[in-house]
Formats: sequence, C-alpha cells, structure tokens
Amino acid sequence: MSDVLTALGEVLEQRKNAAADSSYVAQLYSKGLNKILEKVGEECTETVIAAKDAERSGNNDELVYETADLWFHTLVMLAHRGTSPQAVLDELARRFDLSGLAEKASRQRKLGDA
Amino acid sequence: MSDVLTALGEVLEQRKNAAADSSYVAQLYSKGLNKILEKVGEECTETVIAAKDAERSGNNDELVYETADLWFHTLVMLAHRGTSPQAVLDELARRFDLSGLAEKASRQRKLGDA
Amino acid sequence: MSDVLTALGEVLEQRKNAAADSSYVAQLYSKGLNKILEKVGEECTETVIAAKDAERSGNNDELVYETADLWFHTLVMLAHRGTSPQAVLDELARRFDLSGLAEKASRQRKLGDA
Amino acid sequence: MSDVLTALGEVLEQRKNAAADSSYVAQLYSKGLNKILEKVGEECTETVIAAKDAERSGNNDELVYETADLWFHTLVMLAHRGTSPQAVLDELARRFDLSGLAEKASRQRKLGDA
Repeated sequence: MSDVLTALGEVLEQRKNAAADSSYVAQLYSKGLNKILEKVGEECTETVIAAKDAERSGNNDELVYETADLWFHTLVMLAHRGTSPQAVLDELARRFDLSGLAEKASRQRKLGDA
Repeated sequence: MSDVLTALGEVLEQRKNAAADSSYVAQLYSKGLNKILEKVGEECTETVIAAKDAERSGNNDELVYETADLWFHTLVMLAHRGTSPQAVLDELARRFDLSGLAEKASRQRKLGDA
Repeated sequence: MSDVLTALGEVLEQRKNAAADSSYVAQLYSKGLNKILEKVGEECTETVIAAKDAERSGNNDELVYETADLWFHTLVMLAHRGTSPQAVLDELARRFDLSGLAEKASRQRKLGDA
Repeated sequence: MSDVLTALGEVLEQRKNAAADSSYVAQLYSKGLNKILEKVGEECTETVIAAKDAERSGNNDELVYETADLWFHTLVMLAHRGTSPQAVLDELARRFDLSGLAEKASRQRKLGDA
C-alpha cells in the first residue's frame, strides 16, 4: 500500500465497528452525518483563513495542517457514506488522464507489492 | 509514482508557467489566491449538499464527484502557495502513524518502482 | 415598514410568482434549493476572505458589500423555504431579550407607522 | 429603535469594552478575528445542512434557528471590524431601491420614535 489516503481510508473503515467512546473518529461516526459535515465545513473555513494568513506571513505550516484536517474529515465523510478515497482518486485520475498511473497503482496493490 | 494526488500536484506545478488562457488552472492561478479560495469554499458547500442528497438517495456518485472537485481546488491552492500535496500527506501519515507506509512509498518512488 | 430585511423579504416573496427569466432572483428560485444554498456558501467564503483583507487594509467597504450579498442570499433561501426574515429577527430578539423592542416595532407596523 | 439587527449591533458594540470572561461575545472578541470567522463559516454550514433537512421534513424551525446563529456571528464580525449592521442594511436598501424606506426609518430613529 503506497497511497496514504487509501491507507487512511482503510483505517477509517475498520474503526466503523469500534465502540463510540474508543476514538475521536468512532465518536464522530456515532454522532452521524450532520456532525461530520459540520466538521468538513469548519475545517474548510479554517483552511481559507490559514491560506490568507500564509499569504501575509509567507509561512505555509498552518495551511498544510488545516488542509490535512479538511482532507481527513472528508475521508471520515466518505467512510460514513460507504464509499472510499479510492473512488475520489479514480475520478481525479480519469479527469486528468492519469489513468495509466492509477491502473499501475491498482495492479501493484493486487500483487501485494505496495 | 503511484500516488494520484502527488502526480496531480506535479501537473499543477508545471502549469504555473503556462499562459493564463491556456487552461482552466492557468486562468485560476492568474486570478490569484482569493479566487482560488472562493472555489475551495464553493466546492466544500457543494460537497456538503451532495452528502445530504446521497444520504437521502443512497447514491454516492455526485458525492464522489464533488469531493474530487474539492480536493482538486485545494491542490491548486497548495501549488499557488508554493507547497505540495506531499506535505499534507506527510502530515496525515505522521498523525496516524502511517509513517512506515509513507516511508516505504517514498523508497519505491526513489527506486522508480511506483 | 422600517425594517430593511422585512421589506426585502416581502419583495422576494412577491417575485416567487414571476417568470424565471424576469430577474436574478426568479432565476435562482427556478434553479431550486441546492443552487440557492451553493450561493449562500459561496458568499460566506467571500465574506471571510473580505474580512481577512479588511484586517490587513483597514478598509471595510468590501466586507460590508460581501456581508450584504450573504444576508441577501439567506433571504432568498428563507423565501424559497416558505419562511421569512421576521422569523429570524424574532428568534434573535427572543435570545437577546430585545423582545420589548420587537414588540414595539410590531405594534408600529400594525399601526402603519413604520 | 425598531430594527432588531441595529439594536443588536448596539448591544454588541457596548460589549466590546467588557471583560473577556463576562459573556460569550466578550470571549469571542478576545479570541480575535480568526475565531469569529471560524464561527461564521461553521454557522453557514449548519444553515445549509438545516435547509436540506427542512426540505425533507417540511419543518423550518431548525433553519430559522441556524440562520439566526449565522446572522448573529456576522454581527459580531462587523462590530469587531469597527463597522455596523446599519452599513449592510444601507447597502441592501441602496441595491433594491428601498432607499425611501431606509430614509424614513432613519428619520424615525433621529426623532426617537423607534
């Protein structure tokens, strides 16, 4: 497995069966879709604010951190809805003609190589 | 290279030198950070709406499509700010103790394996 | 009628019966709730960006303009859903113990004073 | 004073001099613009979610409540930036040719009528 988002998607999938008080993610799942979407919107605003601050300061650290938060909560949303980051990555690969790369990555996963 | 976001980040990096009228992304770059952030916010709202519609219909197609739009515009934002999806993926790997996986993926890239 | 939002709410209510191509608002209504909500989210992001720019420049003009856009599109949303700005203003008056003022305003409207 | 938002804007203005631990608003002010904008973005997402739920259920109560939250936090933002709801209402009146109404309301305020 060489793709961080796919690896993380699998971790999030496994935690769907965990007790609600066992982790932050398990708590989010138990609160349901609206709470997860509130977090997605919240992290998006924080990303926009961090980008404006980065424009001023020249330092991208907070922007990278907030973008990670945003992506993470979209992964929780996808898992809660029963789909996966791979579906989104496939859509991006299809749009940008990265299909050769995606196909190769897919073969590698099947072969247990990555 | 087996990671779609990293591959796409490199495509976006290359387009920074292209003429403003040569592509959608080149146009976005030329309009500047505020326009890019408006698109990030817009796609986030469309993702939230698509998730609510998916909850009702049981069909995730639109949700996957809108999440791809959201991730894509965050990639344009990162490239415009001079950073990369790899920085965000490293942050996620660090948080979730996926560092072993990320390191392995990194070695594979250096070896031209992935 | 002395309240701008209530006056505007009544204008928006009247336009619900207009042909889809007769105005911007009539077009928005005809496109449905998702399109209206996309506009609300878009204007919210533009408000946040304008506030960050105002913090830097000291000039609030753009912030006032974008906040007007945001409030306006929430009014379209309320009208589309069959409710009114008055319901929101009543809720705010109730929370902040402005009920005396709101009641007085209500009496004035009944008396045709405002 | 017959306009709830203007009355509320004046309350918010007064609280700018209060101790940080004296109220929710005083706390928000002390945390600064970024925290206030995060709340604006958060309440916007909650409004969008409430509108989708209202579409499904036919009940607008939660939508009215969340819109009140959104407007309230934009009022805190305006006060923090040193401007007022009146500036936004004037902009809306100007756009929609409600200037006659706004002028009348303004006269009433000067006369202590409202």
